[in-house]
Amino acid sequence: MMDQIQATIITIGDELLIGQVIDTNSAYIAQKLNSIGINVHQRIAVGDDTTSIEAALDIAINKTQVVILTGGLGPTADDITKPLLNNYFGGKMIIHQPTLDHISYIFEQIHKRPMIERNRKQAEVPDVCEVLFNQTGTAPGMLFKKNNCLIFSLPGVPHEMQWLINEKVIPIIQERLQLGVIAHRTLLTSGVGESFLAESIIDFENKLPKNIKLAYLPSYGMVRLRLTGKGENATILNNQLDSLFAELINYVQAYLVTDKDEPLEVVVGRLLKAQNQTVATAESCTGGYIGHLLSKHAGSSSFYTGSVVSYDNRIKTEFLDVPTSILQTVGAVSKEAVEQMALAIRAKMKTDFGISVSGIMGPSGQTDEKPLGMVWIGVSNKEKVVSKVFYLRFDRQKNIEVTANQAINLLRLLIINKI
Amino acid sequence: MMDQIQATIITIGDELLIGQVIDTNSAYIAQKLNSIGINVHQRIAVGDDTTSIEAALDIAINKTQVVILTGGLGPTADDITKPLLNNYFGGKMIIHQPTLDHISYIFEQIHKRPMIERNRKQAEVPDVCEVLFNQTGTAPGMLFKKNNCLIFSLPGVPHEMQWLINEKVIPIIQERLQLGVIAHRTLLTSGVGESFLAESIIDFENKLPKNIKLAYLPSYGMVRLRLTGKGENATILNNQLDSLFAELINYVQAYLVTDKDEPLEVVVGRLLKAQNQTVATAESCTGGYIGHLLSKHAGSSSFYTGSVVSYDNRIKTEFLDVPTSILQTVGAVSKEAVEQMALAIRAKMKTDFGISVSGIMGPSGQTDEKPLGMVWIGVSNKEKVVSKVFYLRFDRQKNIEVTANQAINLLRLLIINKI
Repeated sequence: MMDQIQATIITIGDELLIGQVIDTNSAYIAQKLNSIGINVHQRIAVGDDTTSIEAALDIAINKTQVVILTGGLGPTADDITKPLLNNYFGGKMIIHQPTLDHISYIFEQIHKRPMIERNRKQAEVPDVCEVLFNQTGTAPGMLFKKNNCLIFSLPGVPHEMQWLINEKVIPIIQERLQLGVIAHRTLLTSGVGESFLAESIIDFENKLPKNIKLAYLPSYGMVRLRLTGKGENATILNNQLDSLFAELINYVQAYLVTDKDEPLEVVVGRLLKAQNQTVATAESCTGGYIGHLLSKHAGSSSFYTGSVVSYDNRIKTEFLDVPTSILQTVGAVSKEAVEQMALAIRAKMKTDFGISVSGIMGPSGQTDEKPLGMVWIGVSNKEKVVSKVFYLRFDRQKNIEVTANQAINLLRLLIINKI
Repeated sequence: MMDQIQATIITIGDELLIGQVIDTNSAYIAQKLNSIGINVHQRIAVGDDTTSIEAALDIAINKTQVVILTGGLGPTADDITKPLLNNYFGGKMIIHQPTLDHISYIFEQIHKRPMIERNRKQAEVPDVCEVLFNQTGTAPGMLFKKNNCLIFSLPGVPHEMQWLINEKVIPIIQERLQLGVIAHRTLLTSGVGESFLAESIIDFENKLPKNIKLAYLPSYGMVRLRLTGKGENATILNNQLDSLFAELINYVQAYLVTDKDEPLEVVVGRLLKAQNQTVATAESCTGGYIGHLLSKHAGSSSFYTGSVVSYDNRIKTEFLDVPTSILQTVGAVSKEAVEQMALAIRAKMKTDFGISVSGIMGPSGQTDEKPLGMVWIGVSNKEKVVSKVFYLRFDRQKNIEVTANQAINLLRLLIINKI
């Protein structure tokens, strides 16, 4: 088998090493490289520090054929990547005129303020690089070559990095390197634990050919399974994967949510759109997060109508007609309350489906009868209202995320008549 | 100066290299190590692959004194970390009885289903490690020693990893190593660009002592500044940082949002709590995300009352009294619409403040007069309603996040009488 092209992703910035920001760029770059058959061998995060960056570069250039660096290209003194690369590759700094014109345009026409020397400096590039013109910002991308390795330097601002990856980096790699093929098939299950799932597909897993790997990825109380195949020929590999994937789907049919690599809310959005149906949410403990999930993807306005977030119990009564007698006897975290909320939101927003949640997300608010992590979820359609209680044991943030996902999954089960 | 203890974080899992999941564990671990004076030298993400993991371990043990590995400890065949470490450190596998008892308890008492052989295997550990009992899950943590380096292996499940870091890893490191001190001071500004900010504090930056670094961190249309100091003595370092930080605050006073390392919504929550005031949101294009931000932190029920998400224009009319004449003439993305929404939500939810947003988040929905990324934001109190238009140029997800942050910032300006 042809050796696959290997890549290293190097992210630069002290903020990554002190944990102040979460690195989402690496995941984006890895996905894009994978999609054209490049294997990411390693991801390295280093500080704004010459020795560490050079050491990472040495290893990356020695071991892999593609290196993507992000970060450290801004206009301030802690941005050291450009002079460092100039020195590392033995160049001298020159002005890149198209970039300078672009920066002037951004300041004069968009920001409506004068460009200062610091901004002008962003148009300087080492004369030993190919400049990757950055239409989306002030810092250009750069491409260097050494020992048959392509080294790309990109800004760390996510939307600028993404634009450069798609418009410059990927086309250049495809044009200049002989690429192998990587392909994935992913499915999502619900209602079964990771160990039991593994047990039930052990025969399948044991007979997988060497070029195919199976991975288990827990996901908000559900489990995602992924087949990854590597090969030389896209058609042969895709046929091989399709056939194995069909077999895997057969094994897990009873738990299958989707056979695509997509979030749960996209699955539910598609089900609703297919039937021209709509949903509204009545949220308490999730504070608006279910509405956010339902509306974060393009095209959601065709099925998502809106929400009432009744964080304060008064709003549950005034907006969702939950009787004060329910709040005073069984309380807001109860079957009675969420069922009323699910019925009311559907009626008031005139939708086909309603979702409701009420629970104790922590870190406090529990009582003797109602522990931390207890959450009631309700879903309604014109025939019925169904509710279910969950006991979660994560922190507040994760409890909110799992609650939202379980609520959307309960809606899915109602839509497909499984509850 | 005493050499600081250096650490390497190694995260294991193919899902990290194909970009299927975003690595939040590394940021958490880095923060915790920093807080006890350990410098994270490097973070490395490797696949479920023996050669890569061993190569990363070799480098890490050679260069640093603390190594934290996460991932690959689950019950399935793609979880290879434990046998690999057993082999790498030359041990043999034995049953750890307290862990086995704990796993039995979890299956019999909590999951109410029989434990299978695969789960029993999770109680096996190399006889050359110290077991870090994991009260929060089935996979125990492990501690190995080699060449004066402490190597910790932890499960990748975030809440289990976090528990082990806090209860086991940090206390062990503090007990066994002589630690240096790292400290940070962070502030957030709004209303000023990164370059202009840098220009206005250039004198401050140029005279910083060698052990203090300044970093610029763009954050949803605002800029965060961070001072990081390293030293031997906590009191001396903190005094030095406090004095420099006070000076920095003076320089940026006009733009200062907070002088703590905290998200904007926490600043606003504190302002509201201090005055016993409340807020409700009327969201359109953000779909519930502002409500989520306001409610994601503990204690938010004292100031966040609730939201109406009027994703469908019909809900704007029915729930927020936006006249159909406004929707038909100037449209939902207009000054008139958001001002009415901000007034109505405040009146209907009987809060002190109202927030409203309506915009075009993309990737479609624009018109000749209303470009992609155009968003109107309104805020109201009992005296007035103020609105402002923004033109964002990110993707849908980022537009939603920036809109939510700008809306909360506008509320902040209203609360402190700056608009």
